[in-house]
Amino acid sequence: MLCICPTEAQRLNQTNIVFFLQDVASTGPNATVVPVIGITGKAWTFATFGTIFAIDDPITETPSRSSNQVGRAQGMLVTSALDGSNVSVLVSIVFTNREYGGSTLELQGVSRQNERYREVSVVSGTGTFRFARGFAIFETIYYERTISYSIIRCTITLLES
Amino acid sequence: MLCICPTEAQRLNQTNIVFFLQDVASTGPNATVVPVIGITGKAWTFATFGTIFAIDDPITETPSRSSNQVGRAQGMLVTSALDGSNVSVLVSIVFTNREYGGSTLELQGVSRQNERYREVSVVSGTGTFRFARGFAIFETIYYERTISYSIIRCTITLLES
Amino acid sequence: MLCICPTEAQRLNQTNIVFFLQDVASTGPNATVVPVIGITGKAWTFATFGTIFAIDDPITETPSRSSNQVGRAQGMLVTSALDGSNVSVLVSIVFTNREYGGSTLELQGVSRQNERYREVSVVSGTGTFRFARGFAIFETIYYERTISYSIIRCTITLLES
Repeated sequence: MLCICPTEAQRLNQTNIVFFLQDVASTGPNATVVPVIGITGKAWTFATFGTIFAIDDPITETPSRSSNQVGRAQGMLVTSALDGSNVSVLVSIVFTNREYGGSTLELQGVSRQNERYREVSVVSGTGTFRFARGFAIFETIYYERTISYSIIRCTITLLES
Repeated sequence: MLCICPTEAQRLNQTNIVFFLQDVASTGPNATVVPVIGITGKAWTFATFGTIFAIDDPITETPSRSSNQVGRAQGMLVTSALDGSNVSVLVSIVFTNREYGGSTLELQGVSRQNERYREVSVVSGTGTFRFARGFAIFETIYYERTISYSIIRCTITLLES
Repeated sequence: MLCICPTEAQRLNQTNIVFFLQDVASTGPNATVVPVIGITGKAWTFATFGTIFAIDDPITETPSRSSNQVGRAQGMLVTSALDGSNVSVLVSIVFTNREYGGSTLELQGVSRQNERYREVSVVSGTGTFRFARGFAIFETIYYERTISYSIIRCTITLLES
């Protein structure tokens, strides 16, 4: 069989996108991650198996909360490890900026909460990102305990066909 | 077969499938979309962040409710925008007709409720649709307020490898 | 660039992985599948539309509960058929063994509970399984009613690019 077939990865364009989630997991009015329900009789926390959260984190261009808004991270999280270590992630990155506005990336996987770098899959996308595939690495780069405020760097690597 | 390597999209077959969801979001016995839980103290509606719904819509061949049943749209919806505008979609199209019976398509994404055309990803499939990828466009073509009944056109575009 | 275009499937490596889920769906302290919430006024069971479960099943190398642990099946299940027949599956296979430790596979689909062989999609993966795609077949090979204990064979077929 004759072919100068490059590998799948080589034939496809690889794209890197970096942005920052502004995450408030408090119970106050500014919360962007809110527990919806947990197992009866258990606390509703990230460390408790079965707790289900809704999430709508603003996404910014730089770590600064007041930097340009790129989009939102919207979806659901579920503590899915009996020992509380892992959280299942079902989230869409909904872009609202000029470059990607109207497009989304769909994320699925487990976040190992105790790890510095937490990888989930980019399973697909819409708009500009139709048929995109890849992976996303999350790293918490700032945490303010009193108001449960985190800044999380998200680095996405995509193969686009 | 000799060929000059076309792009990924060109090499793969593109398929279009159109069908209609018969959606009853009421609280009555005929409901096909039912709220399971919401954030404590909030209303359980599509406009309220954190509301989780189970869905099992009949799918028909034409807009008519009494036309041939093609399958079911089964899964979960979550209002995932703090302002109530977007709903996260985690739904399988479970085919039951002669052509595709036993096969499924897996959908994931956010539905922008206020838009006429709402796009989510087709992340994969089973049976006939193993390894399929694509996107789905939803459009509400009929709405009867008194019984919360919608007919929703779904146009799916697939690349099959 | 000249090449003899093989089909997508031929160009990619196909991998098969077999393992066993140790599943305890009781309400006791050893439960690995626990109902979190159901539709108000309904029973919280696998046969009741709208029931949402969290799952963290140990995965072993052989059917024996005491065989080597390969990983965990962590995520969420939702009874998504009005007649109780189908369960939506949103689960990650989180490997912990030497061969694949740190890697995951993301599963999505519907499990037809009354079928012997139940197929869901492998929509993606992380680590070693980045960009993997495929399908998973589940088969219950042992069931002990008194303690709601099942051993489920999972056969995964992957195409890796």
